[in-house]
Amino acid sequence: MTTLCLAALQSAGTPRDVEANLAELDRAAAEAAADVLVTPELFVTGYDVGDLTGLAALDLTTRVSEIAARHGIAIVAGLPSPGPDGKVRNDAVFVDDTGQLLARYPKAHLYGDLDRRFHPGDQPPAQVTYRGVRFAVMICFDVEFPETVRTAALEGAEVVLVPTANMEPYAGVNEHLVWTRAWENQVFLAYVNRIGAEDATRYVGRSRVLGPDGRDLAQAGTGAELLRATIDTAEVARARSDFSYLASRRPPLYRLR
Amino acid sequence: MTTLCLAALQSAGTPRDVEANLAELDRAAAEAAADVLVTPELFVTGYDVGDLTGLAALDLTTRVSEIAARHGIAIVAGLPSPGPDGKVRNDAVFVDDTGQLLARYPKAHLYGDLDRRFHPGDQPPAQVTYRGVRFAVMICFDVEFPETVRTAALEGAEVVLVPTANMEPYAGVNEHLVWTRAWENQVFLAYVNRIGAEDATRYVGRSRVLGPDGRDLAQAGTGAELLRATIDTAEVARARSDFSYLASRRPPLYRLR
Repeated sequence: MTTLCLAALQSAGTPRDVEANLAELDRAAAEAAADVLVTPELFVTGYDVGDLTGLAALDLTTRVSEIAARHGIAIVAGLPSPGPDGKVRNDAVFVDDTGQLLARYPKAHLYGDLDRRFHPGDQPPAQVTYRGVRFAVMICFDVEFPETVRTAALEGAEVVLVPTANMEPYAGVNEHLVWTRAWENQVFLAYVNRIGAEDATRYVGRSRVLGPDGRDLAQAGTGAELLRATIDTAEVARARSDFSYLASRRPPLYRLR
Repeated sequence: MTTLCLAALQSAGTPRDVEANLAELDRAAAEAAADVLVTPELFVTGYDVGDLTGLAALDLTTRVSEIAARHGIAIVAGLPSPGPDGKVRNDAVFVDDTGQLLARYPKAHLYGDLDRRFHPGDQPPAQVTYRGVRFAVMICFDVEFPETVRTAALEGAEVVLVPTANMEPYAGVNEHLVWTRAWENQVFLAYVNRIGAEDATRYVGRSRVLGPDGRDLAQAGTGAELLRATIDTAEVARARSDFSYLASRRPPLYRLR
């Protein structure tokens, strides 16, 4: 049995103000009293804040690593990094409690006009084992494709971390879809959203941490909040002991190309 | 544009009383004023009613066909049929308004002890084009696997019909999962459930017909009800015009074996 505490920072951040966002992340890391702290998508810069080329050129990952090491907490943070074709990548980085970078995951499923700024990732969700727990990391629109979370679960993920920037009119994703992802894969899932507005985009908040039986372990409203949830990985096996969706699959019947 | 009226019979039926159930189906067919009438899983016999070998040996499909032809309405009905190994199959048949059998689909994903009576199907969801509309038919537990509905949608289904027998404590499937299936595939979906109890099984009712944008077109409570919904297949393209989940998939990143 492995038990671990997860914290989720639901916040509006400060559009394009990297120093303000890093200061907020530093405060959250100090207060979190958790093993892993997760931020929303592109928390370090803002999401619907125009061209990110200049901010992506800064060494934002190092700054996040410094905060992680300073407070002895692993951090999964959303930030941009330079990509090919003059576009940036929309990344989530996983740094451990010493500041070491364990994984960098670039968002693979890009959403509409807002994501045309980004060069898409070409890898499945990042898998990280930390403190004995198998994590998968994906970003926002990625989770809306059942294939993404299924791939992560089949490869052994116990906890799926999803920095997101989900907006009106898509609150059904928070209410129904992420529940379904946790349920149908019998995994923990943390969906960590932005709040407030950037440009014409109004975020819906309502971050959640769900258990592998679909129970809410923590749930936010539409305001700023630092959620906490205890992850006991024994619950994954417990959820699958009645019936296991993964074991009951019929792959020869699926035509998913 | 193709418009069609769908009716869904949410009912407890009468355990093991085929004549009573066929009489109820006959009444529903007379009242439905619809193009297609859908029943719950194993409506003709009952679901949690013990061994079905004897009842499966009766020619139940012909009886359903006679009802369809008599009232000039297509029927998608749940009934058992003889299978190999002394087990029966848990089928859904699709008969047209002349009583012709267009498809027979045996449940492929079997659920727990209750489904040990059945020989599993070995085919993807049945696809039927009727009155210009592409239907897929699957049964209960099948829909809980995202791969099943995705396969149907990728093969062109516009409307997914799901006779079911969903019980306590799984009402989250009705509330969240079937919404997610309609939403993530941008298809119509009818989830047609039993009510009441059979043996120790308490069904949750709450049948739904959802649009490809996740809107409820019809929704039942926990009592007997004949739901009706109008299906306008132009809504599928409309739902996909903002963004299309099917077109945004990244199959090279999925590892789904």
